[in-house]
Amino acid sequence: MTGHALHVELGERRYRIDIGAGLLGDPDIWSALPLGQTVLVVTDHNVGAHYAAAVCDRLSDRDCRVHSVPPGESTKSMAHVNRILDALIDHGARRDATVIALGGGVVGDLAGFAAACYLRGIAFVQIPTSLLAQVDSSVGGKTGVNHARGKNLIGAFHQPAAVVIDTDTLSTLPDNELSAGLAEVIKTALLADGEFFEWLEQNMDALRRRDPNALAHAISRCCAIKAGVVARDEREAGERMLLNLGHTFGHAIENVTAYRGWLHGEAVGAGLVMAADLSAARGHIAPDDVDRVRRAVASAGLPVDARNLDAEALVSAMAHDKKFQHGRARFILLEQLGLAFVADDVDPAMMSSRLATFCR
Amino acid sequence: MTGHALHVELGERRYRIDIGAGLLGDPDIWSALPLGQTVLVVTDHNVGAHYAAAVCDRLSDRDCRVHSVPPGESTKSMAHVNRILDALIDHGARRDATVIALGGGVVGDLAGFAAACYLRGIAFVQIPTSLLAQVDSSVGGKTGVNHARGKNLIGAFHQPAAVVIDTDTLSTLPDNELSAGLAEVIKTALLADGEFFEWLEQNMDALRRRDPNALAHAISRCCAIKAGVVARDEREAGERMLLNLGHTFGHAIENVTAYRGWLHGEAVGAGLVMAADLSAARGHIAPDDVDRVRRAVASAGLPVDARNLDAEALVSAMAHDKKFQHGRARFILLEQLGLAFVADDVDPAMMSSRLATFCR
Repeated sequence: MTGHALHVELGERRYRIDIGAGLLGDPDIWSALPLGQTVLVVTDHNVGAHYAAAVCDRLSDRDCRVHSVPPGESTKSMAHVNRILDALIDHGARRDATVIALGGGVVGDLAGFAAACYLRGIAFVQIPTSLLAQVDSSVGGKTGVNHARGKNLIGAFHQPAAVVIDTDTLSTLPDNELSAGLAEVIKTALLADGEFFEWLEQNMDALRRRDPNALAHAISRCCAIKAGVVARDEREAGERMLLNLGHTFGHAIENVTAYRGWLHGEAVGAGLVMAADLSAARGHIAPDDVDRVRRAVASAGLPVDARNLDAEALVSAMAHDKKFQHGRARFILLEQLGLAFVADDVDPAMMSSRLATFCR
Repeated sequence: MTGHALHVELGERRYRIDIGAGLLGDPDIWSALPLGQTVLVVTDHNVGAHYAAAVCDRLSDRDCRVHSVPPGESTKSMAHVNRILDALIDHGARRDATVIALGGGVVGDLAGFAAACYLRGIAFVQIPTSLLAQVDSSVGGKTGVNHARGKNLIGAFHQPAAVVIDTDTLSTLPDNELSAGLAEVIKTALLADGEFFEWLEQNMDALRRRDPNALAHAISRCCAIKAGVVARDEREAGERMLLNLGHTFGHAIENVTAYRGWLHGEAVGAGLVMAADLSAARGHIAPDDVDRVRRAVASAGLPVDARNLDAEALVSAMAHDKKFQHGRARFILLEQLGLAFVADDVDPAMMSSRLATFCR
């Protein structure tokens, strides 16, 4: 294997992230994984069809079962958490059992939350197979499910025991989901690393062609940045909020479209342009910078506006975002391309009028 | 007020326990509590009838609502967790909201778990009103609910932000529940403090008469011991297991009686005698010590055996206890009255034959 390895430094809960091509077939990766004797592999029907059998083959010395869930955001529900808990009980899982989350963000969030709740927390390993999960959701320990009244309202901070990212799994990922993952890649560069953003401007085509070296570089850069943020602020008391760049707008888009029609990453893509635009309107960055963000998002195959959506509905949805405290609007804005900050003093009228330029 | 105050030392998550008579009516207690502007008081119909209105009166400057659940162990379910989550959403609770658990162990475990899951964890305050909750379950952060296939299979470690123990609330506690709480008091003394056990031998009548000074002393001694154990081993990797003295037997009794007929504390009472008996059979303590434990448990109004139960069924139930790792029997035994240890090498045949003497 040729891979990258890095660590999330969380003291006793420190864990390793391996990134590379072909890792799922690498015996060294499997022998190093901290697994209990009892393993439940949680996957979805699509991903499972490609990889579940191969994973179980690697675990022939363990007591391994597969629990497959339907693909899609609607699976992130308490009903499916309960089914995983039932499967763990059926499997005789004790405190030393391990859950493997094999799939995209939905599977990781769902399986991670079930592992967090079972016997007040058992170990889980993330094997993310979508770009979005590989660059963002599999690292950092946020787990949870949706409630009828809002996304991710129910959940836990529960760090994985290890993360294994095999870039080969991206070969079966649909184009629009690859683009959705690229939104989080652009987000990560914008909030923390201007040079990485320049690299993205030059290598977006290679990424969309799924060039393995380009993918491995982008994924490890994102994981390294996120690992640093999470190690410094695991529970999102401060710096970790920066990872929500573009997400307040993005969540509002998802909310008013009832989580249909837009992928999460697509909404984040448009949200990044909106965040850059608001940053420029407040004088933090130059109009040219907004154009660079817009071009990067477009070159990833992502929407750069929210035509046909109602600006007032978006503003209203934002007021219900759980990131708001005491009803005050809190936005992540850009000080430069590669440096984000938390703004508590956004003028609601300016926000609404800027947002209107992206709608109709 | 005349009260005791102590702290659970968990770094950033350090919290205070106040113990005394009349604390719920003490403005100083309320003004010192770390509460958000939005408060949901979770209580049961019995406890709520006595104290919910008084609590809300004290919170007239907050946005306070009461969520009342049916009393009894069957309320510790995912269905009731979901209803509390719905109530939090209805109440507009954000990350700075606080859940107050006002009631016994069921309410504390249920409300604490809902607080742990909501937005990946919001603050909660324990106001335990049963002796069992005051001396044991309200301190230490174990929260959770039952599954059809076993007790406390679903849960989280989520420490409260504060614990307020008003011994006056014990005046409305039924006698059998007072006795059930005394089982945990005896347990705590037996595992950690021989002098406290001697004090209990001399003061059991005063406790059963609900003498306020005796109760406050016993409760603060238990909380202090538990706070120390939890601070040293929050996640039960070692020392905290000692708090399960008598519980492996007790859980088996509860299990074979389908959680009906025996209160948890009653099962623990008999379990303490069984643990002492097994300790003597292995030569750790003297037969006289077993008699002292038996007398203390009996004087608390608790059962000291398990007549009519089937010894083999108890053994079989123990094999399914979640505390077992790799199917190996792990018992907490006594080295002396006031000092417990973890035994990994209990002979199953000896355990079965000793257990048989407690049954038929």
